[in-house]
Amino acid sequence: MTQTMQQVVLASPAKGSPLPENFRVETVPVPVPGDGQVLTRTLWLSLDPLLRFAIDEVRLTGATHIRPGEVMYGGTVSEIVASNHPDYAVGDIVEGRTGWREYAALDPIKADIVRGPLRKVDPALGPVETALGVLGMPGQTAHACAVGIGQVGPDDTVAISAAGGAVGTVAGQIAKIRGARVIGIAGGPAKCAAVKALGFDECVDYKATDFAERLAAAAPKGIDVYIDNTGGAVTLAVLPLLNRGARMPMCGFIAYYGVGMEGPGPDHLPGFYRMIMTKGLKIEGFSGQAVAGGDAVAEMAGWLREGRLRNQETVIEGLATAPAAFCETFRQGNSHIGKVLVHVA
Amino acid sequence: MTQTMQQVVLASPAKGSPLPENFRVETVPVPVPGDGQVLTRTLWLSLDPLLRFAIDEVRLTGATHIRPGEVMYGGTVSEIVASNHPDYAVGDIVEGRTGWREYAALDPIKADIVRGPLRKVDPALGPVETALGVLGMPGQTAHACAVGIGQVGPDDTVAISAAGGAVGTVAGQIAKIRGARVIGIAGGPAKCAAVKALGFDECVDYKATDFAERLAAAAPKGIDVYIDNTGGAVTLAVLPLLNRGARMPMCGFIAYYGVGMEGPGPDHLPGFYRMIMTKGLKIEGFSGQAVAGGDAVAEMAGWLREGRLRNQETVIEGLATAPAAFCETFRQGNSHIGKVLVHVA
Repeated sequence: MTQTMQQVVLASPAKGSPLPENFRVETVPVPVPGDGQVLTRTLWLSLDPLLRFAIDEVRLTGATHIRPGEVMYGGTVSEIVASNHPDYAVGDIVEGRTGWREYAALDPIKADIVRGPLRKVDPALGPVETALGVLGMPGQTAHACAVGIGQVGPDDTVAISAAGGAVGTVAGQIAKIRGARVIGIAGGPAKCAAVKALGFDECVDYKATDFAERLAAAAPKGIDVYIDNTGGAVTLAVLPLLNRGARMPMCGFIAYYGVGMEGPGPDHLPGFYRMIMTKGLKIEGFSGQAVAGGDAVAEMAGWLREGRLRNQETVIEGLATAPAAFCETFRQGNSHIGKVLVHVA
Repeated sequence: MTQTMQQVVLASPAKGSPLPENFRVETVPVPVPGDGQVLTRTLWLSLDPLLRFAIDEVRLTGATHIRPGEVMYGGTVSEIVASNHPDYAVGDIVEGRTGWREYAALDPIKADIVRGPLRKVDPALGPVETALGVLGMPGQTAHACAVGIGQVGPDDTVAISAAGGAVGTVAGQIAKIRGARVIGIAGGPAKCAAVKALGFDECVDYKATDFAERLAAAAPKGIDVYIDNTGGAVTLAVLPLLNRGARMPMCGFIAYYGVGMEGPGPDHLPGFYRMIMTKGLKIEGFSGQAVAGGDAVAEMAGWLREGRLRNQETVIEGLATAPAAFCETFRQGNSHIGKVLVHVA
C-alpha cells in the first residue's frame, strides 16, 4: 500500500496580493528517495513574504518563478526519515527550501533552489523552528540591520517599521539589548501591545489619525536609526523626524511589494532626495541574501538562552491552512506577530 | 565726494526657476567700516545653485531666506581694502558670504551667514578664485563624494551626473586620478566634449533619444559608484546599471530643486526602494555643510600644482550680469562648464 501525503501547488499566478484560489492542496504518494537522495519529513514551514515575488504573474524581481502545477518552494525545518546520502543520517534536523509538502525526496546538496544545500540544525541552539525565525533569515536580517548597518548604540533613538513582523520583533529586541530607546511602529492596538510586551519603549499605531503627532511625541530627541521594513506612508512620516546623519538600514519594503517600478502619483522621490541631502542620511539596502552568518547566530542563540531575546512566533496548524495564512500575511491589520510558521508535523 | 558701488538685491521671491526680474541692480554709496569691521572689495562672486532655496517664495529647506530689498548673500573671494580688526590686514584675500556687491563693510568674524567668519585664502595654493571652486565648497564636496563616501578605487566604474558642473568636473577628475573608469553624463554634445577634454573615459548625452542604451554600452561591467548630482530621469536610467553593493554618494539633486516634497506622478519611490533592496545599494547624502576640510584641500592643491587636476571655470564679467547668469544656471542645456563665477574686480 502506497502512503500518501499532502502538498500545496501553485494553481495560478497571483495578480498582486495573492488569494487562496491561487493555490491548490493535492494528495499524492509519498516519494521514494533515489540514489544519493534523502527523504525529509516537514516539521515546520516558513511563510516568507518574499515568496510573493515567485508567484506573481509579473516578474517584479529576479526571483525564480514557480509555474502553475509546481510545488511551492518555501523554506522548512524537516527531519531526515530515510537517507541514501552519507552526510545525512536518519534523525538529522535540517533547514532548506524543501517546499510546501509533508515529505520530499531530494538530493540534499542540490536541493535548495535559492540558498544551497540542506543545512543541519543544531537543536542545542534553541527550538528547531527558530532556524526559520530568530536564528534564521529574519533574525540574521534583523541583526545585520540593527548591528551591522545600523550600528545601534546606547545613545540612539531607534524607530522600526513593521515592528510586529519577523524582522521587526527581533531588530527591536536587539536594539534594546544594545541600550537604545526603541520605538516600534505597527498596525492596531493589539499588535502594538504585543510589540510593547517584547520590551520596546513605545509602539505607535500607524492607523491612528494622529499617527505623525504620536510618532513625534514618542521621539522627543528625534530618530538616529530607522530600520525600515515597509517604505510607503509610514516611512514618509518617519523621514521628517530623522536626525542629521541618521542611519537607515532598509530591510524590507512590504508597502511596495504589489507595486512595480512606478506607483500611482504623486512622486515621492523628490522629497526622499531632499531628506537624504539636507539630513545627510546613510541608507543601505539589506536583501537577506548575504546574511551575517555564524557570529550573529551564536550571539543571538546566547541571548535566547539567557532569556534576553524572545522567540516571537505565530504558529498555524496544518499544511492545508498554509495558503490562507500566507495570503493573510499581506493584509494590513492582520494579527500575526513575529515569524509566521505552519506546524506541519 | 562719496564713492558709489553696485549691489544686487532681491526684487521679489522666485516662483520656481528664478528669473532676471526677481533681482534688481542698485547703485549705493560704498560703506564705511565701523569699529571692528573691515571693508572688502569683491574680486570674484560664486553663482551657487543652492542660493535658489534662499530666494524661493516657498521654504523648500531650512535655508536662511533673503527678503525683498535685501542684498543677495552669495559667496565671494574679496580683498581687504580697509581694516579696523587686528586679525585682518589690508591686502588679505578672504573667502566668505559677503554678498552680491562690489564692497562690503562687516565684522569679519560674524560676517558669514552660513559658514562662519571670513576665511583667509592662501594665494600660494592656486588662483584665489579656486577658493570658490576646485579648492572650495564644490571641490571639497567632490572630494568627499569620490573619496570619502564613494571610496573610488582602480577597479571601479564610476558614473557622474551633471558631469559638467562645478562638483562633477572635479569628482570625475579625482576618480580618474584614483584609477577608475569614469563615465560622465551631461547635456548636449558641446558639454560632453568639454567633459571628455577633462579626461573622463566617456561622456553620455542625456538628451540623446537612446541615452539608456548609450549609457549601458559605456558601462559593460556595470557601475560601482554613482556620484549623483541631479536625481530625476538621469538617475532612473543609471539605477538598473548599478552593480550589487554599489555606492551612491548623493551630492546634489538639481532635477528636483523646483519641486517640493512631492512631484507629479507616477511615484518613483517604489522602484527606488526595489533597486536599493535588490542590489544592496549604499546611499549617503552629502549636503556640503560638513566639508572634508584641510587634508582634502591640501591633496587637491597638490594635484593642481602637478597639473593632474584642472581648474575648470566659466567666468562671467561684471556684477550687473550676475542675475541673468544665475538664472541661466538652472536652464537645462546651458553652456556652463565647471564652477560658474562672476569676475567683479
